[in-house]
Amino acid sequence: MTSKLYCFGESGNSYKVALMLELCGLPWEQVFVDFFKGEARSEDFARINPMKEVPVLIHDGKRYAQSGVMLDVLSKETGKFGPKNEDERLDILRWTLWDNHKLSSQIGTLRFQINFIPEKYRSEEVIKFLKGRSQAALNILESHLYGRDWIATDAPTTADFSCCSYLYYPEEFGFTRSDYPNIDGWLTRIAALPGWKHPYDLMERAMK
Amino acid sequence: MTSKLYCFGESGNSYKVALMLELCGLPWEQVFVDFFKGEARSEDFARINPMKEVPVLIHDGKRYAQSGVMLDVLSKETGKFGPKNEDERLDILRWTLWDNHKLSSQIGTLRFQINFIPEKYRSEEVIKFLKGRSQAALNILESHLYGRDWIATDAPTTADFSCCSYLYYPEEFGFTRSDYPNIDGWLTRIAALPGWKHPYDLMERAMK
Repeated sequence: MTSKLYCFGESGNSYKVALMLELCGLPWEQVFVDFFKGEARSEDFARINPMKEVPVLIHDGKRYAQSGVMLDVLSKETGKFGPKNEDERLDILRWTLWDNHKLSSQIGTLRFQINFIPEKYRSEEVIKFLKGRSQAALNILESHLYGRDWIATDAPTTADFSCCSYLYYPEEFGFTRSDYPNIDGWLTRIAALPGWKHPYDLMERAMK
Repeated sequence: MTSKLYCFGESGNSYKVALMLELCGLPWEQVFVDFFKGEARSEDFARINPMKEVPVLIHDGKRYAQSGVMLDVLSKETGKFGPKNEDERLDILRWTLWDNHKLSSQIGTLRFQINFIPEKYRSEEVIKFLKGRSQAALNILESHLYGRDWIATDAPTTADFSCCSYLYYPEEFGFTRSDYPNIDGWLTRIAALPGWKHPYDLMERAMK
Protein backbone atom coordinates (compact mmCIF):
# COMPACT_ATOMS: atom_id res chain seq x y z
CA MET A 1 0.00 0.00 0.00
CA THR A 2 1.33 3.41 -0.96
CA SER A 3 2.29 5.48 2.08
CA LYS A 4 1.31 9.13 2.33
CA LEU A 5 3.63 11.82 3.65
CA TYR A 6 2.18 15.19 4.62
CA CYS A 7 5.06 17.52 3.81
CA PHE A 8 6.43 20.41 1.75
CA GLY A 9 9.72 20.84 -0.07
CA GLU A 10 11.38 23.33 2.26
CA SER A 11 10.86 21.13 5.33
CA GLY A 12 14.06 19.38 6.34
CA ASN A 13 12.13 17.39 8.92
CA SER A 14 9.94 16.05 6.10
CA TYR A 15 12.99 15.35 3.96
CA LYS A 16 14.38 12.99 6.62
CA VAL A 17 11.41 10.69 6.05
CA ALA A 18 11.00 11.23 2.29
CA LEU A 19 14.66 10.28 1.87
CA MET A 20 14.27 7.18 4.04
CA LEU A 21 11.23 6.05 2.02
CA GLU A 22 13.20 6.50 -1.21
CA LEU A 23 16.33 4.74 0.03
CA CYS A 24 14.20 1.83 1.28
CA GLY A 25 12.42 1.64 -2.07
CA LEU A 26 9.00 2.05 -0.46
CA PRO A 27 6.11 3.46 -2.50
CA TRP A 28 4.86 6.81 -1.19
CA GLU A 29 3.15 9.95 -2.32
CA GLN A 30 3.17 13.51 -1.06
CA VAL A 31 0.19 15.21 0.53
CA PHE A 32 1.17 18.84 0.03
CA VAL A 33 0.93 21.09 3.10
CA ASP A 34 0.81 24.81 2.31
CA PHE A 35 3.01 25.64 5.27
CA PHE A 36 3.79 29.28 4.60
CA LYS A 37 0.07 30.04 4.39
CA GLY A 38 -0.31 28.61 7.90
CA GLU A 39 -1.89 25.27 6.99
CA ALA A 40 0.06 23.32 9.64
CA ARG A 41 -1.21 25.70 12.34
CA SER A 42 -4.86 25.35 11.31
CA GLU A 43 -7.49 23.52 13.35
CA ASP A 44 -8.11 21.20 10.37
CA PHE A 45 -4.47 20.15 10.42
CA ALA A 46 -4.53 19.75 14.22
CA ARG A 47 -6.98 16.90 13.67
CA ILE A 48 -4.30 15.16 11.58
CA ASN A 49 -1.45 16.03 13.94
CA PRO A 50 -2.24 17.74 17.27
CA MET A 51 1.44 18.75 17.45
CA LYS A 52 0.70 20.99 14.42
CA GLU A 53 3.86 19.95 12.64
CA VAL A 54 4.92 18.31 9.42
CA PRO A 55 5.78 15.65 8.50
CA VAL A 56 2.93 13.26 9.18
CA LEU A 57 3.19 9.73 7.79
CA ILE A 58 0.26 7.45 6.97
CA HIS A 59 1.75 3.99 6.68
CA ASP A 60 0.08 0.59 6.84
CA GLY A 61 -3.10 2.16 8.18
CA LYS A 62 -1.35 3.96 11.03
CA ARG A 63 -0.58 7.65 11.43
CA TYR A 64 2.75 8.84 12.78
CA ALA A 65 4.10 12.19 13.94
CA GLN A 66 7.76 13.12 14.67
CA SER A 67 10.32 12.24 12.01
CA GLY A 68 12.38 10.27 14.55
CA VAL A 69 9.41 7.97 15.19
CA MET A 70 8.88 7.42 11.45
CA LEU A 71 12.56 6.61 10.89
CA ASP A 72 12.40 4.09 13.75
CA VAL A 73 9.24 2.43 12.36
CA LEU A 74 10.56 2.22 8.79
CA SER A 75 13.98 0.86 9.76
CA LYS A 76 12.39 -1.78 12.01
CA GLU A 77 9.98 -2.83 9.29
CA THR A 78 12.48 -2.96 6.42
CA GLY A 79 15.56 -4.05 8.38
CA LYS A 80 17.42 -1.20 6.66
CA PHE A 81 19.49 1.64 8.14
CA GLY A 82 18.84 0.46 11.69
CA PRO A 83 20.99 -0.86 14.55
CA LYS A 84 22.64 -4.29 14.63
CA ASN A 85 22.64 -4.46 18.44
CA GLU A 86 21.55 -2.60 21.57
CA ASP A 87 24.63 -0.35 21.74
CA GLU A 88 24.03 0.75 18.17
CA ARG A 89 20.34 1.32 18.89
CA LEU A 90 21.26 3.67 21.73
CA ASP A 91 23.82 5.51 19.60
CA ILE A 92 21.27 6.04 16.83
CA LEU A 93 18.82 7.33 19.44
CA ARG A 94 21.52 9.57 20.96
CA TRP A 95 22.26 11.33 17.67
CA THR A 96 18.60 11.52 16.67
CA LEU A 97 17.79 13.26 19.96
CA TRP A 98 20.81 15.53 19.58
CA ASP A 99 19.71 16.43 16.07
CA ASN A 100 16.21 17.29 17.29
CA HIS A 101 17.54 19.35 20.18
CA LYS A 102 20.66 20.99 18.81
CA LEU A 103 21.02 20.74 15.05
CA SER A 104 17.86 20.62 12.90
CA SER A 105 15.86 22.65 15.41
CA GLN A 106 18.39 25.50 15.31
CA ILE A 107 19.35 25.37 11.64
CA GLY A 108 15.79 24.93 10.46
CA THR A 109 14.65 27.92 12.48
CA LEU A 110 17.62 30.03 11.36
CA ARG A 111 16.98 29.23 7.69
CA PHE A 112 13.32 30.10 8.19
CA GLN A 113 14.21 33.45 9.78
CA ILE A 114 16.64 34.37 7.02
CA ASN A 115 14.69 33.16 4.00
CA PHE A 116 11.03 32.57 4.60
CA ILE A 117 9.46 35.04 7.01
CA PRO A 118 8.18 38.46 5.95
CA GLU A 119 10.82 41.17 6.33
CA LYS A 120 8.84 42.99 9.03
CA TYR A 121 9.08 39.99 11.39
CA ARG A 122 12.78 39.41 10.81
CA SER A 123 15.13 40.21 13.70
CA GLU A 124 18.87 40.53 13.20
CA GLU A 125 19.40 39.77 16.90
CA VAL A 126 17.44 36.55 16.63
CA ILE A 127 19.36 35.59 13.48
CA LYS A 128 22.67 36.26 15.22
CA PHE A 129 21.56 34.19 18.22
CA LEU A 130 20.45 31.25 16.08
CA LYS A 131 23.64 31.44 13.99
CA GLY A 132 25.69 31.05 17.15
CA ARG A 133 23.71 28.01 18.23
CA SER A 134 23.77 26.48 14.75
CA GLN A 135 27.51 26.89 14.42
CA ALA A 136 28.12 25.35 17.85
CA ALA A 137 26.12 22.30 16.71
CA LEU A 138 27.94 22.11 13.36
CA ASN A 139 31.27 22.20 15.19
CA ILE A 140 30.22 19.22 17.35
CA LEU A 141 29.21 17.29 14.23
CA GLU A 142 32.39 18.24 12.36
CA SER A 143 34.53 16.96 15.27
CA HIS A 144 32.48 13.78 15.57
CA LEU A 145 32.88 12.94 11.87
CA TYR A 146 36.67 13.21 11.99
CA GLY A 147 37.90 9.79 10.88
CA ARG A 148 34.36 8.40 10.64
CA ASP A 149 32.25 7.62 7.58
CA TRP A 150 28.87 7.57 9.32
CA ILE A 151 27.38 9.10 12.45
CA ALA A 152 26.35 6.21 14.65
CA THR A 153 27.73 2.93 13.29
CA ASP A 154 30.05 1.67 10.52
CA ALA A 155 27.16 1.92 8.04
CA PRO A 156 24.59 4.59 7.17
CA THR A 157 21.66 4.70 9.59
CA THR A 158 18.59 6.80 10.24
CA ALA A 159 20.79 9.00 12.48
CA ASP A 160 22.63 10.14 9.34
CA PHE A 161 19.35 10.94 7.58
CA SER A 162 18.10 12.87 10.61
CA CYS A 163 21.24 14.99 10.94
CA CYS A 164 21.91 15.63 7.24
CA SER A 165 18.51 16.85 6.22
CA TYR A 166 18.81 20.63 6.38
CA LEU A 167 22.36 20.64 5.07
CA TYR A 168 21.49 19.96 1.42
CA TYR A 169 19.34 23.07 1.01
CA PRO A 170 20.74 25.84 -1.21
CA GLU A 171 19.37 28.82 0.75
CA GLU A 172 21.69 30.97 2.83
CA PHE A 173 21.76 29.97 6.50
CA GLY A 174 25.38 30.47 7.50
CA PHE A 175 26.57 27.05 6.37
CA THR A 176 29.21 26.59 3.68
CA ARG A 177 30.23 23.00 3.10
CA SER A 178 33.87 23.81 2.43
CA ASP A 179 34.15 25.27 5.97
CA TYR A 180 33.35 21.82 7.36
CA PRO A 181 35.39 19.24 5.42
CA ASN A 182 34.28 16.22 7.47
CA ILE A 183 30.61 17.16 7.12
CA ASP A 184 31.19 17.87 3.43
CA GLY A 185 32.63 14.39 2.80
CA TRP A 186 29.83 12.76 4.79
CA LEU A 187 27.14 14.63 2.82
CA THR A 188 28.82 13.43 -0.38
CA ARG A 189 28.73 9.83 0.88
CA ILE A 190 25.03 10.06 1.74
CA ALA A 191 24.26 11.60 -1.67
CA ALA A 192 26.03 8.63 -3.31
CA LEU A 193 23.64 6.08 -1.74
CA PRO A 194 21.51 4.36 -4.41
CA GLY A 195 18.19 6.18 -4.71
CA TRP A 196 19.32 9.44 -3.06
CA LYS A 197 17.48 12.54 -4.21
CA HIS A 198 17.68 16.22 -3.33
CA PRO A 199 14.78 17.50 -1.19
CA TYR A 200 13.51 19.78 -3.95
CA ASP A 201 13.40 16.80 -6.32
CA LEU A 202 11.34 14.78 -3.82
CA MET A 203 8.75 17.22 -2.50
CA GLU A 204 6.75 20.14 -3.89
CA ARG A 205 7.82 23.51 -2.54
CA ALA A 206 5.49 25.77 -0.58
CA MET A 207 7.41 28.97 -1.43
CA LYS A 208 6.88 29.43 -5.17
CA MET B 1 26.93 -0.06 42.06
CA THR B 2 26.20 3.61 42.64
CA SER B 3 25.59 5.47 39.40
CA LYS B 4 27.15 8.87 38.78
CA LEU B 5 25.31 11.75 37.16
CA TYR B 6 27.30 14.72 35.86
CA CYS B 7 24.86 17.56 36.38
CA PHE B 8 24.02 20.85 38.10
CA GLY B 9 20.86 22.02 39.82
CA GLU B 10 19.61 24.48 37.24
CA SER B 11 19.75 21.92 34.43
CA GLY B 12 16.30 20.66 33.58
CA ASN B 13 17.82 18.10 31.25
CA SER B 14 19.78 16.71 34.22
CA TYR B 15 16.67 16.77 36.39
CA LYS B 16 14.88 14.41 33.98
CA VAL B 17 17.42 11.71 34.82
CA ALA B 18 17.96 12.57 38.49
CA LEU B 19 14.19 12.30 38.99
CA MET B 20 14.03 8.96 37.15
CA LEU B 21 16.87 7.56 39.30
CA GLU B 22 15.03 8.67 42.46
CA LEU B 23 11.64 7.34 41.38
CA CYS B 24 13.22 4.00 40.46
CA GLY B 25 14.99 3.87 43.84
CA LEU B 26 18.42 3.52 42.22
CA PRO B 27 21.52 4.64 44.14
CA TRP B 28 23.28 7.58 42.47
CA GLU B 29 25.51 10.49 43.29
CA GLN B 30 26.08 13.84 41.67
CA VAL B 31 29.29 14.84 39.93
CA PHE B 32 28.94 18.61 40.04
CA VAL B 33 29.54 20.46 36.76
CA ASP B 34 30.30 24.14 37.14
CA PHE B 35 28.24 25.03 34.09
CA PHE B 36 28.11 28.80 34.39
CA LYS B 37 31.90 28.93 34.56
CA GLY B 38 32.00 27.11 31.20
CA GLU B 39 32.99 23.67 32.48
CA ALA B 40 30.71 21.80 30.03
CA ARG B 41 32.33 23.63 27.11
CA SER B 42 35.89 22.77 28.21
CA GLU B 43 38.14 20.33 26.40
CA ASP B 44 38.39 18.27 29.60
CA PHE B 45 34.64 17.84 29.63
CA ALA B 46 34.59 17.05 25.88
CA ARG B 47 36.53 13.91 26.76
CA ILE B 48 33.61 12.88 29.00
CA ASN B 49 30.93 13.96 26.53
CA PRO B 50 31.98 15.15 23.05
CA MET B 51 28.53 16.74 22.72
CA LYS B 52 29.66 19.12 25.50
CA GLU B 53 26.37 18.84 27.36
CA VAL B 54 25.07 17.75 30.71
CA PRO B 55 23.79 15.39 31.90
CA VAL B 56 26.20 12.48 31.52
CA LEU B 57 25.37 9.21 33.26
CA ILE B 58 27.86 6.58 34.34
CA HIS B 59 25.84 3.46 34.97
CA ASP B 60 26.90 -0.18 35.17
CA GLY B 61 30.29 0.69 33.73
CA LYS B 62 28.84 2.46 30.70
CA ARG B 63 28.69 6.15 29.91
CA TYR B 64 25.60 7.73 28.41
CA ALA B 65 24.82 11.13 26.89
CA GLN B 66 21.37 12.58 26.04
CA SER B 67 18.72 12.42 28.74
CA GLY B 68 16.34 10.57 26.40
CA VAL B 69 18.86 7.74 26.05
CA MET B 70 19.33 7.52 29.83
CA LEU B 71 15.56 7.40 30.42
CA ASP B 72 15.29 4.60 27.85
CA VAL B 73 18.13 2.61 29.43
CA LEU B 74 16.83 2.99 32.98
CA SER B 75 13.23 2.11 32.14
CA LYS B 76 14.32 -0.96 30.18
CA GLU B 77 16.54 -2.10 33.03
CA THR B 78 14.08 -1.53 35.87
CA GLY B 79 10.85 -2.28 33.99
CA LYS B 80 9.50 1.00 35.40
CA PHE B 81 7.92 3.98 33.61
CA GLY B 82 8.34 2.33 30.22
CA PRO B 83 5.98 1.08 27.50
CA LYS B 84 3.79 -2.01 27.76
CA ASN B 85 3.72 -2.56 24.00
CA GLU B 86 5.09 -1.24 20.70
CA ASP B 87 2.41 1.45 20.26
CA GLU B 88 3.22 2.81 23.72
CA ARG B 89 6.95 2.67 22.96
CA LEU B 90 6.40 4.84 19.88
CA ASP B 91 4.21 7.28 21.78
CA ILE B 92 6.83 7.68 24.51
CA LEU B 93 9.44 8.26 21.80
CA ARG B 94 7.16 10.75 20.03
CA TRP B 95 6.74 12.93 23.11
CA THR B 96 10.39 12.61 24.11
CA LEU B 97 11.45 13.84 20.66
CA TRP B 98 8.87 16.62 20.76
CA ASP B 99 10.13 17.68 24.19
CA ASN B 100 13.71 17.80 22.91
CA HIS B 101 12.72 19.74 19.81
CA LYS B 102 9.93 22.01 20.94
CA LEU B 103 9.57 22.23 24.72
CA SER B 104 12.69 21.80 26.89
CA SER B 105 14.98 23.20 24.20
CA GLN B 106 12.96 26.41 23.98
CA ILE B 107 12.02 26.84 27.64
CA GLY B 108 15.48 25.94 28.88
CA THR B 109 17.08 28.47 26.57
CA LEU B 110 14.52 31.14 27.44
CA ARG B 111 15.04 30.62 31.17
CA PHE B 112 18.80 30.83 30.63
CA GLN B 113 18.46 34.09 28.68
CA ILE B 114 16.25 35.69 31.30
CA ASN B 115 18.00 34.51 34.45
CA PHE B 116 21.51 33.24 33.97
CA ILE B 117 23.45 35.14 31.31
CA PRO B 118 25.29 38.39 32.03
CA GLU B 119 23.13 41.44 31.34
CA LYS B 120 25.38 42.61 28.50
CA TYR B 121 24.62 39.49 26.45
CA ARG B 122 20.87 39.59 27.03
CA SER B 123 18.66 40.46 24.06
CA GLU B 124 15.04 41.46 24.49
CA GLU B 125 14.35 40.43 20.89
CA VAL B 126 15.73 36.95 21.52
CA ILE B 127 13.71 36.67 24.73
CA LYS B 128 10.54 37.71 22.89
CA PHE B 129 11.27 35.17 20.14
CA LEU B 130 11.88 32.33 22.60
CA LYS B 131 8.79 33.27 24.62
CA GLY B 132 6.69 32.89 21.48
CA ARG B 133 8.12 29.47 20.75
CA SER B 134 7.82 28.34 24.39
CA GLN B 135 4.20 29.41 24.63
CA ALA B 136 3.33 27.64 21.38
CA ALA B 137 4.77 24.44 22.86
CA LEU B 138 3.00 24.91 26.20
CA ASN B 139 -0.29 25.36 24.33
CA ILE B 140 0.23 22.05 22.51
CA LEU B 141 0.92 20.32 25.83
CA GLU B 142 -2.05 21.96 27.55
CA SER B 143 -4.39 20.76 24.78
CA HIS B 144 -2.90 17.28 24.85
CA LEU B 145 -3.39 16.92 28.60
CA TYR B 146 -7.09 17.81 28.41
CA GLY B 147 -8.87 14.78 29.88
CA ARG B 148 -5.62 12.84 30.28
CA ASP B 149 -3.64 12.05 33.43
CA TRP B 150 -0.33 11.25 31.73
CA ILE B 151 1.37 12.17 28.48
CA ALA B 152 1.88 8.93 26.61
CA THR B 153 -0.01 6.08 28.29
CA ASP B 154 -2.49 5.52 31.14
CA ALA B 155 0.42 5.55 33.63
CA PRO B 156 3.39 7.84 34.24
CA THR B 157 6.29 7.19 31.83
CA THR B 158 9.66 8.67 31.00
CA ALA B 159 7.84 10.96 28.51
CA ASP B 160 6.26 12.70 31.51
CA PHE B 161 9.63 13.13 33.20
CA SER B 162 11.17 14.50 30.00
CA CYS B 163 8.41 17.06 29.41
CA CYS B 164 7.90 18.20 33.01
CA SER B 165 11.47 18.92 33.93
CA TYR B 166 11.81 22.66 33.37
CA LEU B 167 8.31 23.41 34.64
CA TYR B 168 9.10 22.98 38.35
CA TYR B 169 11.75 25.72 38.46
CA PRO B 170 10.84 28.89 40.33
CA GLU B 171 12.69 31.38 38.10
CA GLU B 172 10.73 33.64 35.78
CA PHE B 173 10.48 32.29 32.24
CA GLY B 174 7.00 33.29 31.14
CA PHE B 175 5.25 30.27 32.64
CA THR B 176 2.58 30.54 35.33
CA ARG B 177 0.97 27.25 36.29
CA SER B 178 -2.48 28.73 36.84
CA ASP B 179 -2.54 29.83 33.16
CA TYR B 180 -2.34 26.17 32.15
CA PRO B 181 -4.77 24.19 34.32
CA ASN B 182 -4.19 20.83 32.60
CA ILE B 183 -0.42 21.17 32.89
CA ASP B 184 -0.84 22.34 36.49
CA GLY B 185 -2.83 19.23 37.44
CA TRP B 186 -0.38 16.96 35.69
CA LEU B 187 2.61 18.56 37.48
CA THR B 188 0.78 18.01 40.77
CA ARG B 189 0.25 14.32 39.89
CA ILE B 190 3.93 13.84 39.05
CA ALA B 191 4.98 15.57 42.28
CA ALA B 192 2.76 13.12 44.20
CA LEU B 193 4.67 10.06 42.93
CA PRO B 194 6.51 8.31 45.80
CA GLY B 195 10.09 9.58 45.92
CA TRP B 196 9.50 12.77 43.93
CA LYS B 197 11.85 15.63 44.77
CA HIS B 198 12.25 19.18 43.51
CA PRO B 199 15.31 19.72 41.26
CA TYR B 200 16.98 22.04 43.79
CA ASP B 201 16.62 19.33 46.45
CA LEU B 202 18.27 16.75 44.19
CA MET B 203 21.23 18.57 42.66
CA GLU B 204 23.69 21.25 43.74
CA ARG B 205 23.19 24.57 42.05
CA ALA B 206 25.85 26.20 39.88
CA MET B 207 24.50 29.75 40.37
CA LYS B 208 25.12 30.49 44.05
